[in-house]
Amino acid sequence: MATTGTDPARMREMNQLTIVWALRGNPPSTVTELAGRTGLSRPAVDVLVQQLVAEGWAEVEEPGASSTVGRPARRYRFRAGAGHVLGIDVGVHKILVMLSDLEGNLVQSLRRPADPEAGPDDRLATVDRCVDEVLREAGMTAADIWAVTVGVTGPVDASGRTSLFTPLPGWNAVDPVAHLTERFGCPVQVENDCKLAAVAERWKGVAQDADDIVYVLAGIRTGAGLIIDGTLRRGHGGAAGEIGALKAVRWLDAPGHLAGCPGVPAAAAQGEAAAWVFRAAREGDRAARTAVRRYARDLAVGVAALTLTLDPQVVVYGGGFSRSADVVLPMLRQELTKHCLRLPELRASTLGDESVALGALRLALDEIDDRLLGGRLAAPAAPRV
Amino acid sequence: MATTGTDPARMREMNQLTIVWALRGNPPSTVTELAGRTGLSRPAVDVLVQQLVAEGWAEVEEPGASSTVGRPARRYRFRAGAGHVLGIDVGVHKILVMLSDLEGNLVQSLRRPADPEAGPDDRLATVDRCVDEVLREAGMTAADIWAVTVGVTGPVDASGRTSLFTPLPGWNAVDPVAHLTERFGCPVQVENDCKLAAVAERWKGVAQDADDIVYVLAGIRTGAGLIIDGTLRRGHGGAAGEIGALKAVRWLDAPGHLAGCPGVPAAAAQGEAAAWVFRAAREGDRAARTAVRRYARDLAVGVAALTLTLDPQVVVYGGGFSRSADVVLPMLRQELTKHCLRLPELRASTLGDESVALGALRLALDEIDDRLLGGRLAAPAAPRV
Repeated sequence: MATTGTDPARMREMNQLTIVWALRGNPPSTVTELAGRTGLSRPAVDVLVQQLVAEGWAEVEEPGASSTVGRPARRYRFRAGAGHVLGIDVGVHKILVMLSDLEGNLVQSLRRPADPEAGPDDRLATVDRCVDEVLREAGMTAADIWAVTVGVTGPVDASGRTSLFTPLPGWNAVDPVAHLTERFGCPVQVENDCKLAAVAERWKGVAQDADDIVYVLAGIRTGAGLIIDGTLRRGHGGAAGEIGALKAVRWLDAPGHLAGCPGVPAAAAQGEAAAWVFRAAREGDRAARTAVRRYARDLAVGVAALTLTLDPQVVVYGGGFSRSADVVLPMLRQELTKHCLRLPELRASTLGDESVALGALRLALDEIDDRLLGGRLAAPAAPRV
Repeated sequence: MATTGTDPARMREMNQLTIVWALRGNPPSTVTELAGRTGLSRPAVDVLVQQLVAEGWAEVEEPGASSTVGRPARRYRFRAGAGHVLGIDVGVHKILVMLSDLEGNLVQSLRRPADPEAGPDDRLATVDRCVDEVLREAGMTAADIWAVTVGVTGPVDASGRTSLFTPLPGWNAVDPVAHLTERFGCPVQVENDCKLAAVAERWKGVAQDADDIVYVLAGIRTGAGLIIDGTLRRGHGGAAGEIGALKAVRWLDAPGHLAGCPGVPAAAAQGEAAAWVFRAAREGDRAARTAVRRYARDLAVGVAALTLTLDPQVVVYGGGFSRSADVVLPMLRQELTKHCLRLPELRASTLGDESVALGALRLALDEIDDRLLGGRLAAPAAPRV
């Protein structure tokens, strides 16, 4: 990497970054390989890589005894454990916290139920307790965390607030970025749950091969997240994907067909009712199949609006109802043919309800990559070896 | 620009390109300025720029007599007239051909009426005659054209065909790229009219400051073109923006309220009827205002679907009806507030019905820029001096 400044410390940092990028995503590499990859001289690489090892960014892989010719070279690899990130799903019914290293390997995960009626302070207190527990189990402190992303329901503005609307009681009055920034010295961002789930599907889910993706979060509520040209689309005010707010596309009505299905146990909560209907439909129950068909018919109008607008390669059916994709997708596909000019591929999510927290991890990792690309080592402090 | 190959002719071409990029979009520059901008040596720049002048890519601006100190340096500028492009709007009712130089300066323009019922061969023959006339008036031949873009109605696939649907009679059976490539040695592309109009609004229209734009082509038919993050979105199969095909968003019904307005002269054609209604509404006619309000109410559902999906910064109201934006936009804005979470700016197009041809010019120019960026001088043959 060429440097324009003359400050030697800055130049050293830039050259270290060059080595970090050359190590990441590659098998353990020798100094010679790194020199070839970076254009830096062998002696310079040798010094830089020793510094990176000393500072905890890289680690040495001692050569095995297998080589018989000469002395085999040491190899170096990026130390994924140099830093960690948190992805937090703040749902209506649950809090899910995930902690991963810099390569996205899951280190710790914790799920706790949340009271749907809980106010914002109670909900934030539950988040804090979950985070405490995850850090404790991982043997870490807040200082070990380099980036935090939080997923919530409702359109999120640039400041991380959910001022337009959210089903989390009282949540539009809180500032979760400020709350978490008090504990963490690192960047904290808040993002809409459907958007994060879409990111997760492209990272580790069923849409890894696609650049134009419509993600539909199907559950008691229905939402959408959009990836266009490989990039998450937030919209000018953070409200992209909120097609469900338009009455004409019938997403507000769709899940009601499930709850209103004849035969649903009277005591069942909304989510249980839907699960009962999907199960009964799978077993051939006539009333249940009619209810699912009506659900699919209404769902299809909104999916068609997204499809006709964006002409995506893939529509991912995710969220709580995606466990019943075997029942829903054939009907949804049939309904979509009535509306669409060109049918995208329909795929069922396999990430289940972990998708929001996973997407949050990915966005936190992206934040770190952006800092690295911006030419700054990403640690809030030097990583601990 | 660094070169990896060792072929001297190729290296010369790459270095010439470096100079071309350093000249474009800059005021006339001296050899010293070009050397500073490119990192090439002064003597190298001197040779390269002489070659570019000899080949017609650059021209000399002789120093004026105003300088009193020493001999003032010659300045060089990119020769915008080195090549030209064609933008062609193949409409139902008209053919519009525009010819510009490499900086997008309009050189020649020609509009001819088209028979709405004309078959594809007749329509292509009209296009050919218009192109002949434009080239003749400009004193050029097909060899002077470096790129051609054609706009048509209906979703256009990667091969330039309109196989899903189009209101141009029989047009889904023709291959306009093949037809025009027979005459022109240069790249020919076909694109959807709404998409081109959106590009034109960002290039020379009312959305030059915006990166997230929904363009609505409002006329006897209603269509949309999308620019997201500064880039025209085609969709995976070229069918992005086709929200109007969804019955639930009521664009298919909207213009009918105008045609059906009481008082419209019986003999009026569709477009004339709409113009009559807008005029009457502007003058306070009660029935006409009701008709426009119903039009706006239906139009708003589709605009809201696009807005809730994409959360754009700007919605541009364009197409034939945009001349009556003063009557329509206040009503449209009012209707949108009923549907949208966040209202984008609504702006009326000022490009009128030239927007499709202008957007076609821009896409043709982009094609040339892509070739230049790809490291190839873009001329099908050497430019004529």
